[in-house]
Amino acid sequence: MRALDIIEKKRDGFELSKEEIDFFIKGFTDGSIENYQASALTMAIYFRGMTDLESTYLTEAILNSGDQLDLSGISGIKVDKHSTGGVGDKTSLVVGPLVASLGIKFAKMSGRGLGHTGGTLDKLEAIEGYNISLSEEAFIKQVNEIGIALVGQTADLAPADKRLYALRDVTGTVESIPLIASSIMSKKLASGADAICLDVKVGSGAFMKNVADATKLATLMVSIGKNCGRDMTAILTNMDEPLGRAVGNSLEVIEAINTLNGRGPKDFTELCLEVAAHLVVAGKKAKTITSAKKLLNQQIKNGEGLKTLARLIAAQGGNADYIYNPDLFPKAKYVVDVKATASGFVNHIDALAIGHSAMLLGAGRSKLDDVIDHSVGIVLNKKVNDKVSKGDTLATIYANKEDVSNEASIIQNAYTYGNTKVASELILKIIK
Amino acid sequence: MRALDIIEKKRDGFELSKEEIDFFIKGFTDGSIENYQASALTMAIYFRGMTDLESTYLTEAILNSGDQLDLSGISGIKVDKHSTGGVGDKTSLVVGPLVASLGIKFAKMSGRGLGHTGGTLDKLEAIEGYNISLSEEAFIKQVNEIGIALVGQTADLAPADKRLYALRDVTGTVESIPLIASSIMSKKLASGADAICLDVKVGSGAFMKNVADATKLATLMVSIGKNCGRDMTAILTNMDEPLGRAVGNSLEVIEAINTLNGRGPKDFTELCLEVAAHLVVAGKKAKTITSAKKLLNQQIKNGEGLKTLARLIAAQGGNADYIYNPDLFPKAKYVVDVKATASGFVNHIDALAIGHSAMLLGAGRSKLDDVIDHSVGIVLNKKVNDKVSKGDTLATIYANKEDVSNEASIIQNAYTYGNTKVASELILKIIK
Repeated sequence: MRALDIIEKKRDGFELSKEEIDFFIKGFTDGSIENYQASALTMAIYFRGMTDLESTYLTEAILNSGDQLDLSGISGIKVDKHSTGGVGDKTSLVVGPLVASLGIKFAKMSGRGLGHTGGTLDKLEAIEGYNISLSEEAFIKQVNEIGIALVGQTADLAPADKRLYALRDVTGTVESIPLIASSIMSKKLASGADAICLDVKVGSGAFMKNVADATKLATLMVSIGKNCGRDMTAILTNMDEPLGRAVGNSLEVIEAINTLNGRGPKDFTELCLEVAAHLVVAGKKAKTITSAKKLLNQQIKNGEGLKTLARLIAAQGGNADYIYNPDLFPKAKYVVDVKATASGFVNHIDALAIGHSAMLLGAGRSKLDDVIDHSVGIVLNKKVNDKVSKGDTLATIYANKEDVSNEASIIQNAYTYGNTKVASELILKIIK
Repeated sequence: MRALDIIEKKRDGFELSKEEIDFFIKGFTDGSIENYQASALTMAIYFRGMTDLESTYLTEAILNSGDQLDLSGISGIKVDKHSTGGVGDKTSLVVGPLVASLGIKFAKMSGRGLGHTGGTLDKLEAIEGYNISLSEEAFIKQVNEIGIALVGQTADLAPADKRLYALRDVTGTVESIPLIASSIMSKKLASGADAICLDVKVGSGAFMKNVADATKLATLMVSIGKNCGRDMTAILTNMDEPLGRAVGNSLEVIEAINTLNGRGPKDFTELCLEVAAHLVVAGKKAKTITSAKKLLNQQIKNGEGLKTLARLIAAQGGNADYIYNPDLFPKAKYVVDVKATASGFVNHIDALAIGHSAMLLGAGRSKLDDVIDHSVGIVLNKKVNDKVSKGDTLATIYANKEDVSNEASIIQNAYTYGNTKVASELILKIIK
């Protein structure tokens, strides 16, 4: 078998076999196939696409390049969720505790990464003492005991994905649906869950700009997961504004706590209940989404969701008092209101611009060794379809520097106004 | 400017600017742009194509990566020819002397290379003493004095092409018309001629398998040459059988001598006259192709073409007696007739198979350091539309090994027979 023949076969529009895909990814991983051949193949895939079966083989080949978590030591159905990345997305912090409180095992291993704000782990590290480094043994023990763990990667999951993504990033093949799908799914499958709920963001603030592309990506990921024996759901959700109101690490954990207290923003609460409901059904604790949502609302009302979050934090060495006393979270030195420069109904909030503004405040990483400031961020006072008069407070900036005029002006420009409200639905589609 | 943006622009179907193409080729040449980015770009070009203007910019950028011959020291119009490569192609050995005998300057610098037989230079080296290494000064002096020189590359012509071709060869982008065109034309333009005639081979034995693709390639090369101020002609010629009868180095020089004596094979003579006629018109020695052909036939009849070949050989240190006494050429030890295994009209002769058989005899190079045996080769006794009876001599093998059963059987299998003659035209199209 030769790398060149595989490149030419894909270039000419033929379906690659499992053996060919395995050969290529193995060779790419061990260095016997050169980067310049891998970038030629990925560009050919960009143009020719891949069938569901090819995408499954590619996912499995990437998966097999590294370790896989063996969660068989955890009793019951193990569930996981994944979001394709949105601004203000703190869904795991609500979904995990809620489903775990119903006796479903939520065993999540996350990577860090670059972004406007930190990832789930960075957010949790806003809490004093929270430890993301658990041995695999301790991880399994904790999930068995309290139903949930949120830890960093210890195992070497899908190393071929890391290499391939770095190459795609500099050779123009990031935007390929089968390559995105196999990248996401290889890591998800390596994490070992039985049921996975994917939150695929759509809109100007998301990687997928339109419903058609997002549907393709979601359908393919669901298909790959099913081909690999997993229970799969994908939810397409709107990213035409940030999710919820808080963007920034401490601020987002506080918003998650509020949500578990029944006082979360409407859109964020809706998304958490939808994602969690699918996992509750997958975890066999309810037969329908409607009955699952009822159960979940109970867990909010009776405080069991919040208690589970507190248990998680305590189990991983964090100070659980934060959960009941959010004043303990690190506080920014300066609090600055951002005023509206125009009037009308908010029709759109550029989520990427809000994210960029949070990043400039220090909430995220642009390089892997950047240090995150957990205290800073933005809380949106006005959301889509709110009525705004010039001079109203649009948002509040939490900063550790005095001059935030640049960040404020980015926020002001992120708002688009109209004379009327706009049609705006958070949940666009469910793909099973 | 970033390599990634250029890759994505081409990937998305936009036209690259001269500055972008220059930047990419410069970076690729000096190593600041990685091979994996170049292979991604060439794959994007494979799918998206390039406009005439982009192809011209690419050709110029590759051209500018190395030296260019300055032929301004040669008086008059300098002409050159190029063939995309065929089996039995010794056209330069006839065209060069013929046009030079009419006072047109034929200044040709060739590379060596891999192939079924050697290139023009290898063929000339069958003559004792022929020296292909001339300084640029001596090269120009010789063309001024006798009108012709056929030498090896001293200058470093289009080094980016060498690197890019090597990369394309292992990443599946050899078969891209704009990349082929810019590769050929960058080297041709670097050689400095004012007028160029391209012989683009078409058919099973050629790189371009059909007239449509060959037309695209030829049209693009003509356009690039014109954009760079050269007088251009491309001739599409049939490669559904080897050109002429001789395949092998000494054998081909002898066939060229016979052709200059008016006793060449019909197809080969026709091609030489066509190519030469276009150069004669470009060199302003005739107004029409018809009158140019008349002049050329005169130069055959009066022996001036042959005399010019003898002059060329003598000027470059070779023994010109070979021209008048072909018995001096190195002789193969074994001469074996290959018999027909079937009867009928010859409908097709697989040129690549004949070439492969010649290569097995030692006539060509499969690796760059292979040593060519000038004496060996094949002479075809039967050509397309000849009538053959089982047992007739199809071809004669000239070998330096006793057992040529494999080569003979390859030749036998290269012949396809039918009950009737087939339509067969050598010159398919002229593109100016």
